[in-house]
Amino acid sequence: MPSNFVILAAGKGTRMESDLPKVLHEVGGAPLIAHALRLADSLLPDRVIVVTGYEGAAVAKSAAHWNPEAIIVEQAEQLGTGHAAQMAMPALTGTSGDVFVTFGDTPFIRTATLEAMQDARKTRDLVVLGFEAADPDARYGRLVMDGEDLQAIVEYKDADAATRAIRLCNSGVICTSAQRLPALLAQLKNENAAAEYYLTDIVAIARAAGLSAGVVTCPEEETLGINTRTELARAEVIFQARARRDALEDGVQLVSPDTVHFAFDTLLGRDAVVEPYVVFATGVTVESGARIRSFSHLEGAHVSRGAVVGPYARLRPGAELAEHAHVGNFVEVKNATIGEGTKASHLSYIGDADVGAGTNIGAGTITVNYDGVFKHRTTIGDRAFIGSNSTLIAPITIGNEGFTAAGSVITDDVAPGALAIGRARQVEKPGLARALMARLRAKKDKT
Amino acid sequence: MPSNFVILAAGKGTRMESDLPKVLHEVGGAPLIAHALRLADSLLPDRVIVVTGYEGAAVAKSAAHWNPEAIIVEQAEQLGTGHAAQMAMPALTGTSGDVFVTFGDTPFIRTATLEAMQDARKTRDLVVLGFEAADPDARYGRLVMDGEDLQAIVEYKDADAATRAIRLCNSGVICTSAQRLPALLAQLKNENAAAEYYLTDIVAIARAAGLSAGVVTCPEEETLGINTRTELARAEVIFQARARRDALEDGVQLVSPDTVHFAFDTLLGRDAVVEPYVVFATGVTVESGARIRSFSHLEGAHVSRGAVVGPYARLRPGAELAEHAHVGNFVEVKNATIGEGTKASHLSYIGDADVGAGTNIGAGTITVNYDGVFKHRTTIGDRAFIGSNSTLIAPITIGNEGFTAAGSVITDDVAPGALAIGRARQVEKPGLARALMARLRAKKDKT
Amino acid sequence: MPSNFVILAAGKGTRMESDLPKVLHEVGGAPLIAHALRLADSLLPDRVIVVTGYEGAAVAKSAAHWNPEAIIVEQAEQLGTGHAAQMAMPALTGTSGDVFVTFGDTPFIRTATLEAMQDARKTRDLVVLGFEAADPDARYGRLVMDGEDLQAIVEYKDADAATRAIRLCNSGVICTSAQRLPALLAQLKNENAAAEYYLTDIVAIARAAGLSAGVVTCPEEETLGINTRTELARAEVIFQARARRDALEDGVQLVSPDTVHFAFDTLLGRDAVVEPYVVFATGVTVESGARIRSFSHLEGAHVSRGAVVGPYARLRPGAELAEHAHVGNFVEVKNATIGEGTKASHLSYIGDADVGAGTNIGAGTITVNYDGVFKHRTTIGDRAFIGSNSTLIAPITIGNEGFTAAGSVITDDVAPGALAIGRARQVEKPGLARALMARLRAKKDKT
Repeated sequence: MPSNFVILAAGKGTRMESDLPKVLHEVGGAPLIAHALRLADSLLPDRVIVVTGYEGAAVAKSAAHWNPEAIIVEQAEQLGTGHAAQMAMPALTGTSGDVFVTFGDTPFIRTATLEAMQDARKTRDLVVLGFEAADPDARYGRLVMDGEDLQAIVEYKDADAATRAIRLCNSGVICTSAQRLPALLAQLKNENAAAEYYLTDIVAIARAAGLSAGVVTCPEEETLGINTRTELARAEVIFQARARRDALEDGVQLVSPDTVHFAFDTLLGRDAVVEPYVVFATGVTVESGARIRSFSHLEGAHVSRGAVVGPYARLRPGAELAEHAHVGNFVEVKNATIGEGTKASHLSYIGDADVGAGTNIGAGTITVNYDGVFKHRTTIGDRAFIGSNSTLIAPITIGNEGFTAAGSVITDDVAPGALAIGRARQVEKPGLARALMARLRAKKDKT
Repeated sequence: MPSNFVILAAGKGTRMESDLPKVLHEVGGAPLIAHALRLADSLLPDRVIVVTGYEGAAVAKSAAHWNPEAIIVEQAEQLGTGHAAQMAMPALTGTSGDVFVTFGDTPFIRTATLEAMQDARKTRDLVVLGFEAADPDARYGRLVMDGEDLQAIVEYKDADAATRAIRLCNSGVICTSAQRLPALLAQLKNENAAAEYYLTDIVAIARAAGLSAGVVTCPEEETLGINTRTELARAEVIFQARARRDALEDGVQLVSPDTVHFAFDTLLGRDAVVEPYVVFATGVTVESGARIRSFSHLEGAHVSRGAVVGPYARLRPGAELAEHAHVGNFVEVKNATIGEGTKASHLSYIGDADVGAGTNIGAGTITVNYDGVFKHRTTIGDRAFIGSNSTLIAPITIGNEGFTAAGSVITDDVAPGALAIGRARQVEKPGLARALMARLRAKKDKT
Repeated sequence: MPSNFVILAAGKGTRMESDLPKVLHEVGGAPLIAHALRLADSLLPDRVIVVTGYEGAAVAKSAAHWNPEAIIVEQAEQLGTGHAAQMAMPALTGTSGDVFVTFGDTPFIRTATLEAMQDARKTRDLVVLGFEAADPDARYGRLVMDGEDLQAIVEYKDADAATRAIRLCNSGVICTSAQRLPALLAQLKNENAAAEYYLTDIVAIARAAGLSAGVVTCPEEETLGINTRTELARAEVIFQARARRDALEDGVQLVSPDTVHFAFDTLLGRDAVVEPYVVFATGVTVESGARIRSFSHLEGAHVSRGAVVGPYARLRPGAELAEHAHVGNFVEVKNATIGEGTKASHLSYIGDADVGAGTNIGAGTITVNYDGVFKHRTTIGDRAFIGSNSTLIAPITIGNEGFTAAGSVITDDVAPGALAIGRARQVEKPGLARALMARLRAKKDKT
């Protein structure tokens, strides 16, 4: 059965105390809206419609980044969740199958949960996602069941004591027929204190129309919606805990799991080792048997089998480490390939470069890739030896087995097997250090 | 009503297993005595008297640092809390209003709690701060009430089962009339096993004299006193939890709050972003919309709107970053201003410097500010371009739009718009690298 | 009474999802087998026999590293714990006293626990280590007691409800007479579903033979065995919690204990201060009053009284810091001594070096210790001054009070008190920077 999605993402999120619209706040390095879109994508949907409102242009831009085919509709006035869903109905015209209505600020629902809802749809006209709240006094709407049938959703404030005692709560997510949803939404009324149209009311409308409704449940954690920075922080904790557990189960060796930060797309191979205090920003893959040492920060990087990164290594987007490469402490690699077995162990900046295999990059080496206007590329061959404190002024090529003397400024290409020196000769002034320091100290004593 | 403070800070804190007196151990980057003094200051008091004892000179020096107007009195012998308070009485002569007796090792009491005690003083001669202990078997003194009146304080060891069942415990903090306290203290006796004068006994003395006593309560956490390093560590945990919660509520974006360490005076603007693993030492302000990236360490620094710090940036005292400045990885900034939009992105030391706006500081740049005796200043203009691996020997001035060639040692001022080069020409020795390496490898094979 | 040990270390640990045998996974920087061997060593045993199986050569190599006198025996087929213990019996020939059978994957048992078992052996032929499981439904074997006598061990799956209600569980560790164990093991049968010989069965065999059996208990945490990466991670958490608590009790100042990572052999002196986010790999000692600042990583290093390390300092094996030395941010020290009061504060690599007392190493200094084949040593005297961005090409000696000019490449020895310069003179091209940048920008505008 084809599926469609309406993702509600119009809210400002006033309680976030932020100028950024709520769904653009991030969990696991991706905005909340991305999590909602990735969940939708996992069902290979027909159409995905995102309803934007507050800072709609920014939300639309982000949504388009994460799913270029997402259809953006605007809710110009914030008149409730039901009204937001109504805005999406024209974009649903001509589709068939199911439609899910989900939320842009609810990042943890699992694909299997939606699949269970689709499955339940085979016997129900409308399926609501519910959960058992751990806190018996939680102020969620209660799902009133009649056996397996959902009879009604009662808001907490309208519920009597018996209804409040029900533990089954409403997540807000629904699934129904894409062809039927517009008609159901059209019957919503805003005769309530807030004068808003509530999506929740369609259960009663459906039941009144003789349609059947059912419930699928999931763990409460999946339904966590984010309204404050504290909830956002809690969501990050949940995200990280999930990611760490998944990594351990996949055979990754996290020495101290609680000290490793993952992004939504981090991929680590079996028997990869990650030491304490490592941050994976987005776009990182680490192959089996590679080791990421403490205090390393990786983003948009690929680390091959047997490579060692850090401690204190920073891999920036475009860093590609071949097998058994080593990038050591206080080394930054950006938009550069590091060949097999090549070492850049200390205090270096390797940017916009291609470095061959078996090469040694001495401590303090810097590729000078920027002339103030343009960026240029450095190419270093295999088995080359870049002396410590070398300054390599790009564009430049160092041939295979090329050698630069320590402390040299290298402005011209170095032929394979050649040695290049670009440094001054040492001159010694006997006794001068002692004399100079004595003079300085005397001056200091006077002041 | 004017207020006065007697802060008891004479104890050694034997159980700390430390040579440092207890009140000089730190929470949130400030010694415990500072927390007590800051709390007192928050009530704009008339006089603040600190009673010192163990390592009194060191405690007095610290107290004077945090409140230059604090009056220091010495308790030469450690004869109990009541005796310590007696030492402060001469210094109270001539004051009016209330006097609080507080403790130098109790960092978490809130201003509002003291205000509530002052308020309670309107109807009571003596007010004691109490709390409900979470542990029913906690060995604190119990507050025996008679309706709203405090009848007596009974030490745990002297209490019968019924009294021990009381949950209301004594924090030790009191508030009473500054004019009356000396007379009450004068009646203390040391007829107990330890032969000490207990401050607590003044409740019985006051009641016997027909005075009224009452209780104000606060959460147990506020009354936490510190006697061991484990309790100190726990206090740091409480401090950090408070600071993180406050920051989140103020609209700061802490990606992973549990990984950010605050000092007592850290100030972060709304929508400032702080990535995982950041340490704020004392004296840091970060404006709205600035971003502090992972593994950064800041102290005595100011970061303006839109600036980006780190990852792996160290800002030391006197670092001033203008709007949209960028200080990147493995860069240290000390006693230096970094102009608007200026970038120092990699592996640099910028110390004792003034850097203009729109300037680019290349990777590996070092300001040489120290000649072995004196420190000198580096001045760099606007839109300048400091080539990578530049060594700038201060005192020196690089004019607006000045340019230093990568790898140069710059010893003299550079005029605006000029290019300065201080490096050797490159010389190439064809085939020499291969020959040299072959010779070295042969030598190695022999050994 | 002399003691002997049989350590069972033959299992693969399939559930670890790893190619590494289970007992080679690490806790606190040492493999599990090392923890078992160190525990055995703490009783000054006669013989220690390690039974290997899966990847036996690798396990044997590690065991030999941690205890060169350990006797390795192989269990070629994995036929159960009883069978594994049988393999060790020939190696026990001729010993007297007790023998413990312990496990290579159980790192937390304490010496005092084994001593209690030895003590219990005075009145019992066989002693089993038991514990009370926190989870009443835990699937451990139950110890059925008859007063003080151990009557039987009943496996959970074989236990009736009453037996399952027993809280006393079997850890698997036993202690008995070294001369009697071979005969007991010889009677084991493998008539069970798995067709394995279970060590546990010797309790029934001993009882049937009229021998007495008793139980010594320990906290459940001590008996934690490791079968999955999640359990390994939990073990690391337990290890770190123990190490932090021990350090606090020894008077170490851990500002934020939960952020400091210890190795099994870390030694920190009283009043040593450790700031947040420090990793101690193996082999580190820090004396009293030294300070380890945030984001530092130490391994195989010794830090003397009053020295300051970090923030962002990396001390590698062989780093020896004398009193009041200072190794600062983005500085790596490897196989090098740093003299009393000497400072290397910024962005340096000091490898294979001896640096005297009172010397200043400028920012960006690099010791060039590697020529592509050999490593060479740098020697720097007392009160020397190494200018910033110096490149010191080893082998080299800088005499006492020697001075190198900032930005110099130093290839030859520097005499005491001499000043060495190895850098080019600065040349200025007026207006050229402006002209060059204008040209580059024009070029960019065209593209």
